Amino acid sequence: MQSRRQALLLSSSNCHGYSMLEFAKQEICSFLERNGVKKLLFVPYAQNDFDKYTAKIKEVMDPWGFEVSGIHTYDNPINAVNSNKAIFVGGGNTFLLLKRLYENNLVDHIRNKVNEGNLLYMGSSAGTNVATKSIHTTNDMPIIYPPSFDGIKIVPFNINPHYLDKVESETHKGETRDQRIGEYLEMPHASPVLGLREGSLLKVDGDTLLIKGVAGAVLFEKGNKKTDYPADSDVSFLLNANNA
Amino acid sequence: MQSRRQALLLSSSNCHGYSMLEFAKQEICSFLERNGVKKLLFVPYAQNDFDKYTAKIKEVMDPWGFEVSGIHTYDNPINAVNSNKAIFVGGGNTFLLLKRLYENNLVDHIRNKVNEGNLLYMGSSAGTNVATKSIHTTNDMPIIYPPSFDGIKIVPFNINPHYLDKVESETHKGETRDQRIGEYLEMPHASPVLGLREGSLLKVDGDTLLIKGVAGAVLFEKGNKKTDYPADSDVSFLLNANNA
Repeated sequence: MQSRRQALLLSSSNCHGYSMLEFAKQEICSFLERNGVKKLLFVPYAQNDFDKYTAKIKEVMDPWGFEVSGIHTYDNPINAVNSNKAIFVGGGNTFLLLKRLYENNLVDHIRNKVNEGNLLYMGSSAGTNVATKSIHTTNDMPIIYPPSFDGIKIVPFNINPHYLDKVESETHKGETRDQRIGEYLEMPHASPVLGLREGSLLKVDGDTLLIKGVAGAVLFEKGNKKTDYPADSDVSFLLNANNA
Repeated sequence: MQSRRQALLLSSSNCHGYSMLEFAKQEICSFLERNGVKKLLFVPYAQNDFDKYTAKIKEVMDPWGFEVSGIHTYDNPINAVNSNKAIFVGGGNTFLLLKRLYENNLVDHIRNKVNEGNLLYMGSSAGTNVATKSIHTTNDMPIIYPPSFDGIKIVPFNINPHYLDKVESETHKGETRDQRIGEYLEMPHASPVLGLREGSLLKVDGDTLLIKGVAGAVLFEKGNKKTDYPADSDVSFLLNANNA
């Protein structure tokens, strides 16, 4: 059966030269508006101060015409998801986020609702990582042990958010981002990894997958394959589980 | 009972301006020689090509007067540990290393032998991470799911190897190393984190802990406490479990 999933997966909420979420404003607004969504459920689990984090998102998105509420303000997180048509999972620490999603039995619940077409999913950074096949390619520190590295699996491949070609200084002997992703691709269980540059986002609509935003992405595959995809590329082939 | 542990925990095998392990040569040689050790068991589990990795270490250390063998060349890893007086756990991916140590039932076995004074432990980078309380503060990508983040616990605190004060470019919005360590310290289960700069190493001798090598370390504690310790500092207080 064709998935009725609809999702926006942002590399990050912040992008150099833009205020918070501004680089993605047009995509976010059209994503929500064309589905008649006026209310947005925010999931601040990747950070520790839920009220403060939710207030920050409210401050940005309420003026855009959306009413943002924090999942922690509901009696029950499952009910919170059931009473909203769209969810936004914010960034922070991916391990902490995934652990809290599992603790609240939200991983399967969100997956099912998204696949049925009954929930729009928006994620940023850690919120994008947990939406993929697994969190194997997060950049975050493993500050807490989650019951699994499996994600919500809205898409069947991996994402590396905040992707950049080179981070370390020339004298530093730590591994580069590309080396780290290469280590993952050596694993028998590895899927392709899409490195999303800051300012890029993925638009998932059923079986169509587009790279949008102001920056491109880089696809890493087994056998040292590395392919650049500029913004507006169609990468729907990545949704084919046989390629992932 | 006082621990009879003896260990050398290196931030990394490579340090800018030195050939492999060269910055630590004097410490390594005196550590092994004063204990009458001529044979060294190398654990290449953090990488995938065990033969190649072991050959690289042999090439460096055999000329120093030590006979290096790979743990994978023995019939049984437990017997390999039992028939050597010193072990060197090399760097690579911390998650992969810890998973393989658990799979081979080596975590408790190494801890017990080290605490009894029957095994000298040397680690570098990932091999240093797994020697601590837990791998919560590794820089590595979580490319594989280990059965636990708990380490061998030769020391009761956490280490961040390859520590450097600032990595990301000024325009990049990803988190800095200090922010990542700060996220860990917000966790209720967090212990102090010693950031070991490349070129630094820890010398553990019973209840004495010294920072050695050509670079210093930075101690991060709850409440945004950050303290610099130059090479040759005595940080034995970190071995007191009440401080960890």
